[in-house]
Amino acid sequence: MNITAAYTDLYQLTMAQVYFITKPDGRAVFDYYYRTNPFKGGYAVFAGLEDVLDILETLKFSESDITYLEQHGFEREFLEYLKDFRFQGTIYSSKEGDVVFPNRPILQVEANIIEAQIIETLLLNILNFQTLIATKASRIRYSAGNESTLLDMGLRRAHATGGYYASRAAAIGGFDSTSNVKAAEDYNIPCSGTMAHSFIQSYEDELKAFRDFAKIRPINCVLLVDTYNTLRSGLPNAIIIAKEMEERGEKLLGVRLDSGDLAYLSKQTRKILDDANLGYVKIVASNQLDEFVIKSLKEQGAPIDIFGVGTNLVTGKPDASLGGVYKLSEYNGDPRIKLSENIIKVSLPYKKQVYRVLDTNGMFYGADSIAVFSEESVNEMIHPFDATKSLNFEHFDREPLLEKVMVNGAKVNPPRTVQEIANYSQSRLEKLPEEYKRFQNAHIYKIGLSNKLKKERDILVAKHKL
Amino acid sequence: MNITAAYTDLYQLTMAQVYFITKPDGRAVFDYYYRTNPFKGGYAVFAGLEDVLDILETLKFSESDITYLEQHGFEREFLEYLKDFRFQGTIYSSKEGDVVFPNRPILQVEANIIEAQIIETLLLNILNFQTLIATKASRIRYSAGNESTLLDMGLRRAHATGGYYASRAAAIGGFDSTSNVKAAEDYNIPCSGTMAHSFIQSYEDELKAFRDFAKIRPINCVLLVDTYNTLRSGLPNAIIIAKEMEERGEKLLGVRLDSGDLAYLSKQTRKILDDANLGYVKIVASNQLDEFVIKSLKEQGAPIDIFGVGTNLVTGKPDASLGGVYKLSEYNGDPRIKLSENIIKVSLPYKKQVYRVLDTNGMFYGADSIAVFSEESVNEMIHPFDATKSLNFEHFDREPLLEKVMVNGAKVNPPRTVQEIANYSQSRLEKLPEEYKRFQNAHIYKIGLSNKLKKERDILVAKHKL
Repeated sequence: MNITAAYTDLYQLTMAQVYFITKPDGRAVFDYYYRTNPFKGGYAVFAGLEDVLDILETLKFSESDITYLEQHGFEREFLEYLKDFRFQGTIYSSKEGDVVFPNRPILQVEANIIEAQIIETLLLNILNFQTLIATKASRIRYSAGNESTLLDMGLRRAHATGGYYASRAAAIGGFDSTSNVKAAEDYNIPCSGTMAHSFIQSYEDELKAFRDFAKIRPINCVLLVDTYNTLRSGLPNAIIIAKEMEERGEKLLGVRLDSGDLAYLSKQTRKILDDANLGYVKIVASNQLDEFVIKSLKEQGAPIDIFGVGTNLVTGKPDASLGGVYKLSEYNGDPRIKLSENIIKVSLPYKKQVYRVLDTNGMFYGADSIAVFSEESVNEMIHPFDATKSLNFEHFDREPLLEKVMVNGAKVNPPRTVQEIANYSQSRLEKLPEEYKRFQNAHIYKIGLSNKLKKERDILVAKHKL
Repeated sequence: MNITAAYTDLYQLTMAQVYFITKPDGRAVFDYYYRTNPFKGGYAVFAGLEDVLDILETLKFSESDITYLEQHGFEREFLEYLKDFRFQGTIYSSKEGDVVFPNRPILQVEANIIEAQIIETLLLNILNFQTLIATKASRIRYSAGNESTLLDMGLRRAHATGGYYASRAAAIGGFDSTSNVKAAEDYNIPCSGTMAHSFIQSYEDELKAFRDFAKIRPINCVLLVDTYNTLRSGLPNAIIIAKEMEERGEKLLGVRLDSGDLAYLSKQTRKILDDANLGYVKIVASNQLDEFVIKSLKEQGAPIDIFGVGTNLVTGKPDASLGGVYKLSEYNGDPRIKLSENIIKVSLPYKKQVYRVLDTNGMFYGADSIAVFSEESVNEMIHPFDATKSLNFEHFDREPLLEKVMVNGAKVNPPRTVQEIANYSQSRLEKLPEEYKRFQNAHIYKIGLSNKLKKERDILVAKHKL
């Protein structure tokens, strides 16, 4: 499937047609944000922005889309509009790779309401997923430590072509390489891989399989040692091959464990390799790994150098989705709000800016303050629902987080590579204190409102309460 | 992204290059199967086949794929091979939409080992995901009953472009329609939708928003009534509009509840609508629904006509993935096996056929028997690991389940529409006794081996045990 503007929910087009007829010049501001951190953690890593902007720059309806919509009751004049549809709005966004938190705008779309509505589904579809996976990847990186190598190998369990974007997001969140050739090619991510059991099974004997493989592909050669028996067959055979490679002036990169008790087997394997003077041969481990299994392996002292992570990474288990939403906050300059019986789900009116408070060491203080965009010198934040809780950050440094990334449908900044975004993400995570990164009961990062925003929101809530 | 043959794991190409050099004429049989039913249920609905076959018929490497691989150390002769690569193998498969069970081949690929290896990742990527989602959809259909209408509206939470395939699989599993315009267009799935909160927020008042919408889109008009207050604002306004529509000779299709207690609100709404002589106006409910919530709503007598299901459907929560595997079972006519410390993970050798046993009413008896493909008159099955357990089905009807669907890279059968596959799936689920469909402790469908297959498997296990 090629992404066209028809990769959206039908109701976007139904509503767009009403706007087209009744108020074709309406200007809207929509906020993208989520309400709960993924994985019961303390943050998320924002990802998918560059893809969204690239797609928006060229997004249009195909001829067959128009024909389809014609057959489904849309009106001629509106179809003419759709034929020429281009997104020409302006987007303010957090930088891709930044750490973000619940209930604050991560991105804002300012556009004709027809355009803003048509792109909603696609924008949510890309940002929700990549943010989920980049966050998962960052957690796995956190438990593996910077000394470990992390390989994404989840493509076969990914959600069809969603796996393409999963590999990109994994790299942003801290993975070193992917097995996904297409994603590696298009996004310039390092590509790596080992071998499959079927390769060894296709031979009458394991040693011959290893030998053929190592001869033809000596660079970054990793031998899979658990097809028959790890310690009694795979590893002794791998050692024979490593010695043969040495004679040719080559080096075996590693052996891969894909089943059994990885802590026990990796320790045994390390010892056997070291005893054979193969201290340089690395140990690769895979098999249903996630941040918790890796943390446990680390705590047990398992001497694993490279972790191959698949299913749990690319599907973002156990969450499987990030509930990011896209809410109208301003229409033709007037503030808008969505009420809810659950007060935490009440949306924030107006186009906004978000300020991050820094402590004296340049670390994140643990507070983002949301203000009306036009406000100057924002120096305080108030708890959204408890006016007794507030923070004055007059004497703190702060960063405005939302920057213009698209104007009139055109990208403002030069393209950023996945590697640049990944580096930026790492630098931001380093500024986030440890207590927000731990897996159990992560500290709650504070999100507050400026005086003005809180006041305006409360006025609107009162106005709409019946 | 366009799917090309580079949408695969790097190791497939690394191994393929070794095969290309050392045994370019190797013929392999690979089995596709999974080991555990999704969602702790009693079955899975097999989906994705038609997509896989369509993709395989035209799959090739793009010029940029070849350039990329050239830069990454692949050899010139192998790259020449890849330039002309086409899948020319033969595929035997269960029918798409059939109910399937763990540890029996669902599909078998018989091809040159290079080709069989290159397509592995893509095949798993598509089949695992669509089978997961079709199964989830069938469970939701089971709890909603045939009298309810089911709408897929999960695109915004789907895994990027994986959402395209999710909508297809949802239709196969029993959903009536999707909000996903692109999938509806390409797969000829009924498309439907309602309205968003932002539409109402863009107006100063809810009634005016409803009125504009109903006038411009009177067909299948559903009004979202919870933006401000369901019972005090949304519903009274919807009733006004319904009456205005009646005066124009039109009918309001429904009102949609998207928050709050859906059981309570749907009962109140039904009563209020009925009291206003609007018995024909349907109630649509959404908000984090899944098979369990719908079951509970049904048990409470909630008068909901249409369920809109999003996140939990399209991400296949809570599983998020199906662990389908692709294992070598034959190489150049010789049987192959993959051992494991876990006996249940030992693979089955040989190209195989699977027979489903039917009872005297044509219902599924609850047993599939796996035999070597060439075996004739298979009349018994033996438990894979417990020889004391067996079934003689000499006097039962049986169906061979694997049929040739692709020969020399070309599809054998005319295309099947999603609707045809969905109808077939429903007919198969109707033959599956209730006890395999319940959510708690589903009955275990028996999978056995023919005498010959069991004997051959045991010989190979003994041979490889060290």
